[in-house]
Amino acid sequence: MIINGSGAGRQPSSELVNGNKTEQSARHFHSNSNDVSALETLGPAAKLTDADPSEIPPASAPGRQNAVTINDILERRAKAGRLIAPTASYSDSDMFKGPQVGKPKSQSMDHHLSPESLSRHPCALKQAARHLKTPGLISLGGGLPCAEYFPIESITLKVPTPPHFSEAATASSGAEVRIGKYDVTDPLIQGTYDLSIALNYAQATGSAQLSRFVTEHTELVHNPPYSDWRSCLTVGSTGALEQTLRMLCDGPGRGDCLLTEEYSFSTALETANPLGVKVVGVKMDEQGLLPEAMDELLSGWDPKEREGRRKPHVLYTVPSGQNPTGATQGLERRREVYEVARKHDLFVIEDEPYYYIQMPLETGATTAAKEGEEGADGEGKEEEETVESFISSLIPSLLSMDVDGRVLRMDSFSKVVVPGSRVGWVTASEQIIERYIRHAEVCNQGPSGISQVILYKLLDEQWGHEGYFKWLMNLRGEYTKRRDTMVAAVEKFLPKEVVSWSVPVAGMFYWLKVDHTQHPGIQAGRTILEVEEEIFDSCIAKGVLVARGSWFRAEQDTEPNELFFRATFAAATAENMTEAIRRFGEAVRESFKL
Amino acid sequence: MIINGSGAGRQPSSELVNGNKTEQSARHFHSNSNDVSALETLGPAAKLTDADPSEIPPASAPGRQNAVTINDILERRAKAGRLIAPTASYSDSDMFKGPQVGKPKSQSMDHHLSPESLSRHPCALKQAARHLKTPGLISLGGGLPCAEYFPIESITLKVPTPPHFSEAATASSGAEVRIGKYDVTDPLIQGTYDLSIALNYAQATGSAQLSRFVTEHTELVHNPPYSDWRSCLTVGSTGALEQTLRMLCDGPGRGDCLLTEEYSFSTALETANPLGVKVVGVKMDEQGLLPEAMDELLSGWDPKEREGRRKPHVLYTVPSGQNPTGATQGLERRREVYEVARKHDLFVIEDEPYYYIQMPLETGATTAAKEGEEGADGEGKEEEETVESFISSLIPSLLSMDVDGRVLRMDSFSKVVVPGSRVGWVTASEQIIERYIRHAEVCNQGPSGISQVILYKLLDEQWGHEGYFKWLMNLRGEYTKRRDTMVAAVEKFLPKEVVSWSVPVAGMFYWLKVDHTQHPGIQAGRTILEVEEEIFDSCIAKGVLVARGSWFRAEQDTEPNELFFRATFAAATAENMTEAIRRFGEAVRESFKL
Repeated sequence: MIINGSGAGRQPSSELVNGNKTEQSARHFHSNSNDVSALETLGPAAKLTDADPSEIPPASAPGRQNAVTINDILERRAKAGRLIAPTASYSDSDMFKGPQVGKPKSQSMDHHLSPESLSRHPCALKQAARHLKTPGLISLGGGLPCAEYFPIESITLKVPTPPHFSEAATASSGAEVRIGKYDVTDPLIQGTYDLSIALNYAQATGSAQLSRFVTEHTELVHNPPYSDWRSCLTVGSTGALEQTLRMLCDGPGRGDCLLTEEYSFSTALETANPLGVKVVGVKMDEQGLLPEAMDELLSGWDPKEREGRRKPHVLYTVPSGQNPTGATQGLERRREVYEVARKHDLFVIEDEPYYYIQMPLETGATTAAKEGEEGADGEGKEEEETVESFISSLIPSLLSMDVDGRVLRMDSFSKVVVPGSRVGWVTASEQIIERYIRHAEVCNQGPSGISQVILYKLLDEQWGHEGYFKWLMNLRGEYTKRRDTMVAAVEKFLPKEVVSWSVPVAGMFYWLKVDHTQHPGIQAGRTILEVEEEIFDSCIAKGVLVARGSWFRAEQDTEPNELFFRATFAAATAENMTEAIRRFGEAVRESFKL
Repeated sequence: MIINGSGAGRQPSSELVNGNKTEQSARHFHSNSNDVSALETLGPAAKLTDADPSEIPPASAPGRQNAVTINDILERRAKAGRLIAPTASYSDSDMFKGPQVGKPKSQSMDHHLSPESLSRHPCALKQAARHLKTPGLISLGGGLPCAEYFPIESITLKVPTPPHFSEAATASSGAEVRIGKYDVTDPLIQGTYDLSIALNYAQATGSAQLSRFVTEHTELVHNPPYSDWRSCLTVGSTGALEQTLRMLCDGPGRGDCLLTEEYSFSTALETANPLGVKVVGVKMDEQGLLPEAMDELLSGWDPKEREGRRKPHVLYTVPSGQNPTGATQGLERRREVYEVARKHDLFVIEDEPYYYIQMPLETGATTAAKEGEEGADGEGKEEEETVESFISSLIPSLLSMDVDGRVLRMDSFSKVVVPGSRVGWVTASEQIIERYIRHAEVCNQGPSGISQVILYKLLDEQWGHEGYFKWLMNLRGEYTKRRDTMVAAVEKFLPKEVVSWSVPVAGMFYWLKVDHTQHPGIQAGRTILEVEEEIFDSCIAKGVLVARGSWFRAEQDTEPNELFFRATFAAATAENMTEAIRRFGEAVRESFKL
């Protein structure tokens, strides 16, 4: 294997990844090194089967038939022994997966990659790290500082104990979790991850310790239907999207476009535009993206009518609680979206920050009346629901139906743990993740080690998979209460003759459609943007900040023909939220002279 | 001010930055809001003076004549009152600078910017955050989670107390620093930065709290000679370099090149190449970059001889302890480099991770004999040196002589605090930093808040500027001991007939030149790369990892004509380092059949 920095003759194939895997198999990575564990059976060949790769799992049992359970994971870990992953050690999410029996291998997505991505070579210095496993080797190689000079001896966290998640319960029954500098080499502690490792440089994939957790979590929830899937930590989905767009799109050279919902996450639009990637909006309904509209758009694509741009080959979508519309694709909708993606050979970026904030549709005065309880202990509220039934209740992801390996899923801790960690993860096929890592090595070197060790200690060691799911279940309940407070407020305070909405079943956003055709200004010749601005300014004057719908329009170079505002129920207290909606209603009424 | 997401009519000027500044002046940012403090005098106009912008501060007193002292900073802070910077609040490093009396304004660097950078627009949602300061406003705007759902009640750090920096001293006399969730709103604590803020989203510039610290630190050490300089936090210098290259270079479109040392940081090369930016190496000596060679290269540049590429307009340089050569530019050298940059209108990226690891040249058996003391308490060792004399002893930076605003300096905590924080900062003119922030908003959203609050608590609240400088002084002493250990080892074990070196006066690297002309293989027709590989493989077999010189060649598409290896003295213990050099010497001897 060539690790020379010289560019000549190197291919962006998976050769190097495989090379690494061979040298640093799971065996060397766990303490039970002589144990013929489940992990040892995981050679790439073992995952190639005769299964028909064209078969999407049936809708009736969406991928759960061979579901991996938390007990499977616990058993697997027990067999593998203590995870040994010292400073900057190489890891691969494949080391932490279960046997991928009966799954096909992903298809090649080479033709989707940009010239920029194809030209990336492995980082010479990071590659050299593979020699660190040589017994007795002394490294004068990388300029890694000595842990002796890290001025933090320990970090202690105070965190909730499942299921006592509220702030009050944490104050009384929370656990103190200590992270020492040398916990891993301390024979009394025998830790898995410590500050000497977390505070130093690491691989751009993130640490083996947190990678293991997110890989297992991904397997528990999505269990992708092809064998060679990988997860890789990111610096959050904002950064992951930028990397992924650059990996797949070449605006100036190839005239690439990006398909997305006609109203889309504004930061995504602001990411694509400077790359010279033209964003193309697909019509939506209350379940989001319309597959027929996408099919039609693609089937009728004519570069001559599109400034010479070639037919789009990448779709960016937020299937659950879409930002800004709050729309959630149901199971059938997702299957249809995936089928259109296959038909037109689209690569799909599935961005799912709100995936775990899926809520029941039914709301009502009863729930809204509970608003005073906000912040109370979540304990016991979800007692009728098990972790298994929670996982089963989630609408299956596009990743879970991706037999081809054409989906890159972005997960995030921002909405369900803390945004300030700047840690998330992506899941895709081995070849896509290999390119992603090559990019991350020069783009950010992976997420903060401090964030990683804190998340690891909380999610893996303190809570475990079971505890984390219980946290997510509790959080879903909290957001449902908040959503219901807003339902009650919009019902009470908004003028239904001009404002309409669908109740969101996931996420954090309420999308309010205002019927501009009834606006006296519009009737007198003013533009929708002018009316939108008037209402927005009036809102500020009245003391409420809402987001303007036009900020989210995928095709910013066209005139809007509808008027929307977005309101979040994530941030304000119940009382403030209600008052804010009242103010918004007042601003609308005044503008419409109602 | 337009904050609509619509692209029409928006310019990448500093208008928006100024707009923000007006609305959110320092007044609103500190608790003494009625105090006519020094900060209030800082309107942009106040900084425009009649000073001659062509005048570089004289070499005899490089920028220290109007030096800002720690006492000035303390006074300024006392006048400003408690810093009030709640969740996701906007800040600008200008809020934390002292009066920039007598300094000219930076020159426009617009012509250096890439089309990609020029096309970036402010993030609509981040811009909307400016309304959050409106009294009584309830935000239903951004999807910021409620701090109530952050499952960390507190983080407690155990850290050293200056000057008792060693691990042993920290264990016995270290301080416990607690970060609570609501320290800022707790009337008893009246904190400046807490978990409710740090764990949530923030501006891409990073938090006001840590920005203040790095801005003041930059002023204390570099005090740039133009008025409108800014600092901005980064996700570390790896990410900062990628962003900066994309901001300045357009490989495919404009045929941009990047000048750098002929041997350069391999990750920098791996960053530039996939962007289509051609790296051009400049000859070096033991003081690094040769200004005359750079002048000659640029003066004689002919696109026809360079695959049509236009004359380079960007220089990337590591002036202190350059990676991989360990070379350090002296003061005169830096002034010459800067003059050549002005002559050819170069924009300069000054990457200075090793700036504080500047070491005295004199070494010797006495120092080397101390190696057994490694890790002992640093207390008292530097007692003869004051913080002021330490700062004065540092070779002035290119930033400190940058009268034009053509330098972007990258600072990092990686080598001097912890790499795992993934936090650093850049300093440049307002217009450059404004473009940098626009990029960061979509590229990574700034560094981890967890990392930021921990660094803030340690560096600002626990140590203060004085304590941090003492830490740096102590660290420099530690690395000097390590360097001296390696000096003794190379003197003892390397065959001087074929291996030569200069003793590094900064950084972490020893650059060992091997005289390939004496190698029997070369004499028999083998290539330098083959011999390099043979020695490298032999080193691995003997149990030492060194870095191959060819990994660092700026122009990877040409054949090497010299043979080097890089060894770091940062990582191994004194005993291991000595043994490792012995093994390397053995590998060289065997290969040369000495």
